[in-house]
Amino acid sequence: MQANAPIGVFDSGIGGLTVARALLDLLPEERLVYYGDTAHLPYGDKSEAAIRSYAHGIVAFLREQGCKAVVIACNTASAVAYDSLKSEFPDLPIYNVIDPVVEYVTLGDGEKAVGVIGTRTTIKSDIYRRKIKEIRRLIKVNSMATPLLAPMVEEGFLNNAVSEEVLKEYLWRKPMLKVDQLILGCTHYPLLIDQIRKVISRDIEIVDSAHVVAKKVAVHLESENLLNQKKASLKSAFFLSDYTPVFEANANRFFGEKVTWIERNIW
Amino acid sequence: MQANAPIGVFDSGIGGLTVARALLDLLPEERLVYYGDTAHLPYGDKSEAAIRSYAHGIVAFLREQGCKAVVIACNTASAVAYDSLKSEFPDLPIYNVIDPVVEYVTLGDGEKAVGVIGTRTTIKSDIYRRKIKEIRRLIKVNSMATPLLAPMVEEGFLNNAVSEEVLKEYLWRKPMLKVDQLILGCTHYPLLIDQIRKVISRDIEIVDSAHVVAKKVAVHLESENLLNQKKASLKSAFFLSDYTPVFEANANRFFGEKVTWIERNIW
Repeated sequence: MQANAPIGVFDSGIGGLTVARALLDLLPEERLVYYGDTAHLPYGDKSEAAIRSYAHGIVAFLREQGCKAVVIACNTASAVAYDSLKSEFPDLPIYNVIDPVVEYVTLGDGEKAVGVIGTRTTIKSDIYRRKIKEIRRLIKVNSMATPLLAPMVEEGFLNNAVSEEVLKEYLWRKPMLKVDQLILGCTHYPLLIDQIRKVISRDIEIVDSAHVVAKKVAVHLESENLLNQKKASLKSAFFLSDYTPVFEANANRFFGEKVTWIERNIW
Repeated sequence: MQANAPIGVFDSGIGGLTVARALLDLLPEERLVYYGDTAHLPYGDKSEAAIRSYAHGIVAFLREQGCKAVVIACNTASAVAYDSLKSEFPDLPIYNVIDPVVEYVTLGDGEKAVGVIGTRTTIKSDIYRRKIKEIRRLIKVNSMATPLLAPMVEEGFLNNAVSEEVLKEYLWRKPMLKVDQLILGCTHYPLLIDQIRKVISRDIEIVDSAHVVAKKVAVHLESENLLNQKKASLKSAFFLSDYTPVFEANANRFFGEKVTWIERNIW
């Protein structure tokens, strides 16, 4: 692997851009190759076999693009496709969005309660609870599906009366009232973090997976001597499998700057 | 066709149950066979070819079940698959959820403004505007995508602070402020009708496609002597392609009574 090669990032759509943003904020010398699999979104509705097959196609494409590492910036694909990607691409460092968060919240000792919010698919998979309990059995994990949050964010309802009411409706429910940390278990949710903090109004830690994952990638690539030593000369590239204008408008909001998309059907 | 045969109704999921409800309320002697294609929902994300292929499989199944007529209780499938279903099944009366509504709002004469709300796919297809304009050019049609409403209804956020804020956010936008009639262009929306009326607060007519379509079906089947003359002895049957407990809980709310589902993969 070349240290000056790009880092691949993929998601079923737009959410992974929060991870891409966090990566570039932390590692401004790096170049990304992003793939949003908009033709198949939402992954949450698809079978595990289908998601695995999409993910394999995408990682093969990212490797062809010369990527030195790949970040699965999607909870559903992380839950379902990580193991098979690791065995299919044994030489490529691959990161998912779940393990770094589990590792982070299980640091230290003592009892505590951790809340997890995510899509119906992610919460139903129970993956956060299982992985946290494997490491620290005494941590109480309160999971709750919050399926309206992702479409709400995609609709641009942020920091307004709608998002406030929706967040209150979810976060003032009993399982969330006594948690010490809250995991944002969906890559759409970092856009809501300020308002989530305001609605919760207690002083708890909100664990934004985009940042935790970016840190994990930075530390690991550094230890492997795979970080770019000078600013990449090429700009990051953004591919998607099905272009729509709505997606483009949303993408700019998620990424915090204008994104130029290239449509590329890789199947 | 036998008058005592059932009426087939299908949708990608749950929304069509509002049409099923309206049909049984209007025609209590009838028996329905409902098919919810939950394995492929949401149709809005799928290609036209894929939706047509699903719809053909479902109508073939409904005909095997002995249905005397079929209602496409889904806007996306109505827009995309109606013509090909008509030519594939020429002897079967087939109804869609769009034409009866277009026919209804274009009755009479004079200028007026009609609002249409629906999913992103339905509004993007521009089908209501095109069909209305074909019949009465002077009707002004203001369409607006309201993509958060369907997931909101599926989440059970009805008549609460969330649904009020979301409806205000949409319905107080300029294109909706001066309409004389409002078409609910999605079979999920009848569950919101009371709150929509409250949020609009002007005295306009809200056109609930479930009721308009049920009336159309009733009038047409009557004219063909295809209405059941005495109460059906069998109960209505409800099939779906992929069972989940969440779907079942939602379905009861949409249908207004408990539904017993049979999982049947017809592909």
